[in-house]
Amino acid sequence: MTGTVPETMWAAYIDSVGPADAIHYGELPVPARGPTDVLVRVRAVAVDPVDTFVRSGAYATPLPFPFVLGRDLVGEVAEAGTGAVGFTPGQRVWCNSLGHAGRQGACAQYATVAAERLYAAPPDIAAEHLVTAAHPAASAWLALFRHGRLKAGETVYVGGGAGNVGAAAVALAAAAGARVVCTARAEDAPAVRALGAAEVLDYRAPDLGPRMRRAAPGGYDVHLDTSGHGVLADAVDLLARGGRLVAMVGLGGGPSVLPLGRLYTRDASIVGFALSNAAVGDLAEAAGAVVRLLRDTAWRPRIADRLPLSRTAQAHRRLEAGEVRGRLLLTPP
Amino acid sequence: MTGTVPETMWAAYIDSVGPADAIHYGELPVPARGPTDVLVRVRAVAVDPVDTFVRSGAYATPLPFPFVLGRDLVGEVAEAGTGAVGFTPGQRVWCNSLGHAGRQGACAQYATVAAERLYAAPPDIAAEHLVTAAHPAASAWLALFRHGRLKAGETVYVGGGAGNVGAAAVALAAAAGARVVCTARAEDAPAVRALGAAEVLDYRAPDLGPRMRRAAPGGYDVHLDTSGHGVLADAVDLLARGGRLVAMVGLGGGPSVLPLGRLYTRDASIVGFALSNAAVGDLAEAAGAVVRLLRDTAWRPRIADRLPLSRTAQAHRRLEAGEVRGRLLLTPP
Repeated sequence: MTGTVPETMWAAYIDSVGPADAIHYGELPVPARGPTDVLVRVRAVAVDPVDTFVRSGAYATPLPFPFVLGRDLVGEVAEAGTGAVGFTPGQRVWCNSLGHAGRQGACAQYATVAAERLYAAPPDIAAEHLVTAAHPAASAWLALFRHGRLKAGETVYVGGGAGNVGAAAVALAAAAGARVVCTARAEDAPAVRALGAAEVLDYRAPDLGPRMRRAAPGGYDVHLDTSGHGVLADAVDLLARGGRLVAMVGLGGGPSVLPLGRLYTRDASIVGFALSNAAVGDLAEAAGAVVRLLRDTAWRPRIADRLPLSRTAQAHRRLEAGEVRGRLLLTPP
Repeated sequence: MTGTVPETMWAAYIDSVGPADAIHYGELPVPARGPTDVLVRVRAVAVDPVDTFVRSGAYATPLPFPFVLGRDLVGEVAEAGTGAVGFTPGQRVWCNSLGHAGRQGACAQYATVAAERLYAAPPDIAAEHLVTAAHPAASAWLALFRHGRLKAGETVYVGGGAGNVGAAAVALAAAAGARVVCTARAEDAPAVRALGAAEVLDYRAPDLGPRMRRAAPGGYDVHLDTSGHGVLADAVDLLARGGRLVAMVGLGGGPSVLPLGRLYTRDASIVGFALSNAAVGDLAEAAGAVVRLLRDTAWRPRIADRLPLSRTAQAHRRLEAGEVRGRLLLTPP
């Protein structure tokens, strides 16, 4: 297959961090690959909010320039290194950890992926579902189970249950036997209930706090706010003894006041978690959970729009404007 | 031995929560005991700050009145129930979990203790050391290892390294192979260094933050502030990736602002912990650690004063005035 790999490729990249306008679309050399690497012919890329943080510099991470953007891809093996055991040309694969920590990204016709970061794509799952599920479902799974230690029979609060991460969290938690209370817009409530939420509260209700308390009189064992709208002190108040608040987004509305006394007297904890820090083994385990979620539950990522790779800058602008409900897909030529 | 147990006993107790003046010293019936209980003839009681919170009502916990105060005791078995396996009259024993959650306290001539909450006192360890170590050393051990998951080779910050809990934490962490940075008054620094602290910083230094950073350029894996003087946002800033801040006291100086973004982007967590919530198994494990600490390290609890049990109210007042450096011991008649 080596003969089929060209010298150059189209890519969306930056020469320095900056606004979306800093994104170039142009030709770059097809990347080099080492003996345990796989060269992937990229078929689709999902755009994550974190891609905009990498691009803007808000998330500080080593970026060798020119730097190709993008974390998640689905595609086929173009070339496999002699030590990239288990991969063969033509095989359908996916990845969810490119585009940061020195690793070039997915927004190109080709990407070099370390074999340990690449997963075989099951034939029964649509490529578009896999790539758009990769980031939110892995985030939700690691947040709930690795960092939140959610167990069957426990009660979990999911803030933003109709969002990308939130809906995956609702489906994962319900499938694991937890009782799920979440917030969503009223028009999204039926869909979120279909994923297994026991109670769906309107996040704009003025008495949201008392409603949350009534929905879980014993408190929440796990609190996962994916929306960024929550109030930390109220969330801590609603934790059960031994409860875990998983922090994976900042919260709006000024400084977050933590009532330390109410935290420690109930053995509660706040566990920070960013998918960018996940170890290779954790990512692989999460990848398995992503596949099971797509196979075993009704949850599917919502695809908001499909754009050619040449419009990566537009995709970033739309995400940053906060107007996208669902995922944006980019397709290389 | 039953014949030697009288009908009544002297005790320090309350009829309702309130100030230290509400403490009565008088005669109460020797408590009943069930088949898996041990009646202990109390020889010494250590007064814990938490005893004052129970007495005042600041720590809400079920209190059957008249309620005998006090959490930690050392004494001898007076009577052992038929199911209190392993205990025999005259045996020296200690306990660190009376006086809350419906259990009557230690401040009396006799106390009924469930066998699973009672530990044999090793003959090579002084009774006064055991009873005054019970609370601070168990707190330090559970905070560092159970809740903070401290491992050999990691760096730990102990705020208040010369205090009751702090000094025990320094000795435990150093003995476990961790690198210990702590704060203390300058005059206490040599003693804290002798317990194994690698660096002792003056807690009044105006540039304490930069000093803490220089002392651990890679950040702190575990942060344990026993002093209540710390600033939460600064503590979070100084955490290593994956760092754990164990919260076991409130912090003074107004509301504690938590920089959520700095927490989650480094996978850091804040783990609340109160010894009052510890399960029986955790307390027993901690009791073993207390004995090893007294046996294997140079740490000894500092005994500030010894008072007769009749002066329990005075002991509470002195603790609440914040003037006691070390532990107060009460001795029943």
